[in-house]
Amino acid sequence: MNKAAVYHRADRSMAYSINSDEMQIRLKTAKNDIHQVTLVHGDPYDWTNDQWNFSQLDMKAAGTDELHDYWEVNISPPYHRLRYGFILSNKKKSVFFGEKNFHPAPPKDIGEYFCMPYMNKADLFQSPEWVHNTIWYQIFPERFANGDASLNPPATIPWGSEDPKRDSFFGGDLQGVIDHLDYLEDLGINGIYFTPLFEASSNHKYDTIDYFEIDQYFGSKETLKELIAECKKRGIKVMLDAVFNHSGFFFPPFQDVLEKGENSRYKDWFHIWDFPVQTTPEPNYDTFAFTYMMPKLNTEHPEVKNYLLEAARYWAREFDIDGWRLDVANEVDQAFWREFRTEVKKINPDLYILGEVWHDSIPWLQGDQFDAVMNYPFTTNALQLIAKRSITVKTFIENMTKVQYMYPSPVNKAAFNLVGSHDTPRILTECDGDEQRVKQVLTLLLSYYGTPCIYYGDEIGLSGGMDPGCRKCMEWDPHKQNSELLNFTKQLIALRKSEPLLSNDGDLSFYNLSDQTVILKRENKQEAILILINLSDKKDAVKVPYSLNKRKTVDLMTGEAHKWKKGKFKLKPQEIKLVKIH
Amino acid sequence: MNKAAVYHRADRSMAYSINSDEMQIRLKTAKNDIHQVTLVHGDPYDWTNDQWNFSQLDMKAAGTDELHDYWEVNISPPYHRLRYGFILSNKKKSVFFGEKNFHPAPPKDIGEYFCMPYMNKADLFQSPEWVHNTIWYQIFPERFANGDASLNPPATIPWGSEDPKRDSFFGGDLQGVIDHLDYLEDLGINGIYFTPLFEASSNHKYDTIDYFEIDQYFGSKETLKELIAECKKRGIKVMLDAVFNHSGFFFPPFQDVLEKGENSRYKDWFHIWDFPVQTTPEPNYDTFAFTYMMPKLNTEHPEVKNYLLEAARYWAREFDIDGWRLDVANEVDQAFWREFRTEVKKINPDLYILGEVWHDSIPWLQGDQFDAVMNYPFTTNALQLIAKRSITVKTFIENMTKVQYMYPSPVNKAAFNLVGSHDTPRILTECDGDEQRVKQVLTLLLSYYGTPCIYYGDEIGLSGGMDPGCRKCMEWDPHKQNSELLNFTKQLIALRKSEPLLSNDGDLSFYNLSDQTVILKRENKQEAILILINLSDKKDAVKVPYSLNKRKTVDLMTGEAHKWKKGKFKLKPQEIKLVKIH
Repeated sequence: MNKAAVYHRADRSMAYSINSDEMQIRLKTAKNDIHQVTLVHGDPYDWTNDQWNFSQLDMKAAGTDELHDYWEVNISPPYHRLRYGFILSNKKKSVFFGEKNFHPAPPKDIGEYFCMPYMNKADLFQSPEWVHNTIWYQIFPERFANGDASLNPPATIPWGSEDPKRDSFFGGDLQGVIDHLDYLEDLGINGIYFTPLFEASSNHKYDTIDYFEIDQYFGSKETLKELIAECKKRGIKVMLDAVFNHSGFFFPPFQDVLEKGENSRYKDWFHIWDFPVQTTPEPNYDTFAFTYMMPKLNTEHPEVKNYLLEAARYWAREFDIDGWRLDVANEVDQAFWREFRTEVKKINPDLYILGEVWHDSIPWLQGDQFDAVMNYPFTTNALQLIAKRSITVKTFIENMTKVQYMYPSPVNKAAFNLVGSHDTPRILTECDGDEQRVKQVLTLLLSYYGTPCIYYGDEIGLSGGMDPGCRKCMEWDPHKQNSELLNFTKQLIALRKSEPLLSNDGDLSFYNLSDQTVILKRENKQEAILILINLSDKKDAVKVPYSLNKRKTVDLMTGEAHKWKKGKFKLKPQEIKLVKIH
Repeated sequence: MNKAAVYHRADRSMAYSINSDEMQIRLKTAKNDIHQVTLVHGDPYDWTNDQWNFSQLDMKAAGTDELHDYWEVNISPPYHRLRYGFILSNKKKSVFFGEKNFHPAPPKDIGEYFCMPYMNKADLFQSPEWVHNTIWYQIFPERFANGDASLNPPATIPWGSEDPKRDSFFGGDLQGVIDHLDYLEDLGINGIYFTPLFEASSNHKYDTIDYFEIDQYFGSKETLKELIAECKKRGIKVMLDAVFNHSGFFFPPFQDVLEKGENSRYKDWFHIWDFPVQTTPEPNYDTFAFTYMMPKLNTEHPEVKNYLLEAARYWAREFDIDGWRLDVANEVDQAFWREFRTEVKKINPDLYILGEVWHDSIPWLQGDQFDAVMNYPFTTNALQLIAKRSITVKTFIENMTKVQYMYPSPVNKAAFNLVGSHDTPRILTECDGDEQRVKQVLTLLLSYYGTPCIYYGDEIGLSGGMDPGCRKCMEWDPHKQNSELLNFTKQLIALRKSEPLLSNDGDLSFYNLSDQTVILKRENKQEAILILINLSDKKDAVKVPYSLNKRKTVDLMTGEAHKWKKGKFKLKPQEIKLVKIH
């Protein structure tokens, strides 16, 4: 038995409440090393004649990645308290694994057991319920639509007349978004994530000058109010982007520091190493990356905190926005985000808080900071599997399983899944222009748990490499849009909305049965949907060991009855199939 | 290579700042599996021609337990940001281990590396500096000294005339403590931890009736003020005990609920399952353990929060106390403790916050909640090794190493180490009355890192089994005190105060060289102290592989030069040796 590989800690992604009464416990063991795991558990105070009363419960072999097996069980401790340990068995022997050591059998001393001291509701991870049924659409406002030519910036380039450069302006604005809400409603999305709208000098607006003003080239506060009102009519949520890690160079407090140096009343708003302040050749203050134009804000300073938190409250309170996306969220102190959450949730408990974190995000996802992070591990693996074909189906399943068990289940259900953004090449480009692969990527995105986001224009076949290439003007000429792709996207969106199994009512698991076809299962106790994507240019035939028991099966793409014999699926080259089992 | 056993996460006890500029990184591998580990690291934004610039740094094999080796390294990233991974080598091969996978060599994609996004000061774990040099003395006020007979409770039993029962009262009070501060000063301790002083009906006072009043039998607020003033004169810190998990049965709000049921304005102050409220045969409300006399407080309710937080602030503000010990801290919600910390640290940033948690305490020790927990794993292992002789020296070392690597180094330095309390049998009793073993236990306690606490009376040889046996009256007749033990304790306390290496200036490590002698090393870059405790009734000779290089060695117990030849120590049966190497 590989005891050194057995891992559990009563913490984080291993033991947590999933609601007020129920908790989930997981255990990680070396792959194929353990054949059975039993949870030994009891209330810490439940004793009879100096003997602790415990029960046993089998754990489920829930998933497997390259090196590990994951075991999982749900349990509802009657008094919301639990001491527990594990009995691990392989073919040869059984051992007990507890907080302190391994033992031949469950020990009498409860100090040897792990502990969930009390399932306090205040410590529960809870994301807004509506997010679980939201399909997002990311808009980069400068490039979505120009609805008010009177707001065009100087040197505005005619819409779509050329590929964007780092400093191009095409005149996109909020009125343009209002003008195309019918398009978005028809597409089926029900949430818009806007990259920053606040006053800034660049075209991307990640260099805020005034956190309380709409950028003059985008429109006014009134336009935003109208836009939000129109969205609400259509059941579309609105999320704004907050850049609190750093300010723009022209943020007046930073300009004041540049001007007055040590005498500036804002000198502690940033991390200035020494005076006089210099910007070049090397800035002598903390910056985002090494960009002297983006001085890092001192979010530990009470005045900075007040200023930024008031901005967060202001747009939530006055504009009733539904979400805040937090730029470079990982580099801001966690103490700040805890206050941020407390403050915005006071105004709107249903406001979604989404952090930008590209790496392991567990510290931010404990219920005290964010509701979700941008799920770039999903992006990477989906693109490697389908767009670049650089990993095998097996590796994809292992990688996604690993990610799944890095986070508690309720966290996974709120994850913000994306396959491209203003920070990455577009999927069509990642897929080398292969439209069928784009469809496959979108199928995976829209049938995965979490909350999916479509980057504007991906649905009509916009192409583009890394920024600024991925920030082209949206194409509004129907003849130049890829209508086939658009219709396919609409169909998938409609399916996700009509089939709750595809969003978060279904558990997710994988079948590792074919080298060329990735197979997902979404199921609850009553029904299941199988998603099959043949990645190869060759046809495939896979036998899914799903017991039908005379149940009805429907091909969701055609709406017609699906006939299979003993779980055998025949797939054409690159075919996508979604089959529902009633 | 046992890849499944390799563990690291950029989180908790594995990667953390130890001060504003320096961080510590650890890695866990299967025991004896890996021969060398090298950290691969760089600033996430430091690129040249699309190539990420990284450096390498060897890690130290820092400790080993039953199943694992621990690797550690300190690093000061110039821009307070770090991406990093590990190169693991055994005799056959080297592999790279990163956040996502193993690779044959360090990959180009920094997404494969672990991340410390930014070392924000606000997220640093920081305990008060003074705690690192504090030697605590725990006082159970009802049993320490009766200084004011006019305050005796009804049916007070003459001091020390009989063994305590669950409901005995002997009349101990605050004046009694004041009267014996000279004794404590002479003993050398410089911190007093008082079990609860607030109005309550029991003798232990863990059933609070009024969080804003001193118990009438203990004295008045004036007496406490005088006591604290006298302590301050002597450089003795004062820590009080807060019972915020539950109230006493006679807490007026609970009485109001019992009386008025659903119409009580306090009905939500507790966790009442349904009305009418019943206390017997089974309470229909949450309690501490299954004790209907101790209703659990609803610490998520704003009024309860305000009430308890104001109590916490009140004693800090008006009485200038130095610490709060938090009873059953693990069962209260962590959101409450975060507010608690913010509030009391606003009044006194140097106030020590000590939580009672008996099991894995990592969630509370991240800098946002507690400064320390009561280190019961130390208690258990110290007593098993020395008092009960139920574990070997090797197991002791392995167990303590495991505990050490469960927590960040700065957390270990603030740990509240104890070998007995009002909740456990006394050490003399645990040692079957063997005084030499008690000395050995005290030696270990007072030469270990963290902040040690002596339970009143242990130093003069009080005995007693589990509560109520361990709560006997303090013996004040010098002829009945064990003066030999008292003098030994004084000597050890004096040594710990005169030798900073023994408190927290010295790193701690173990030599596993003998089955019968436990050997600790406390060292900094200049000096070292070796602590040797022969646990056996036989003499021992151990050869410590310490390179002297003509350095001076002193026996700290005698003050005389210590002569050793090539690191060879001869120990008499049960002998205790502390040798300083200058």
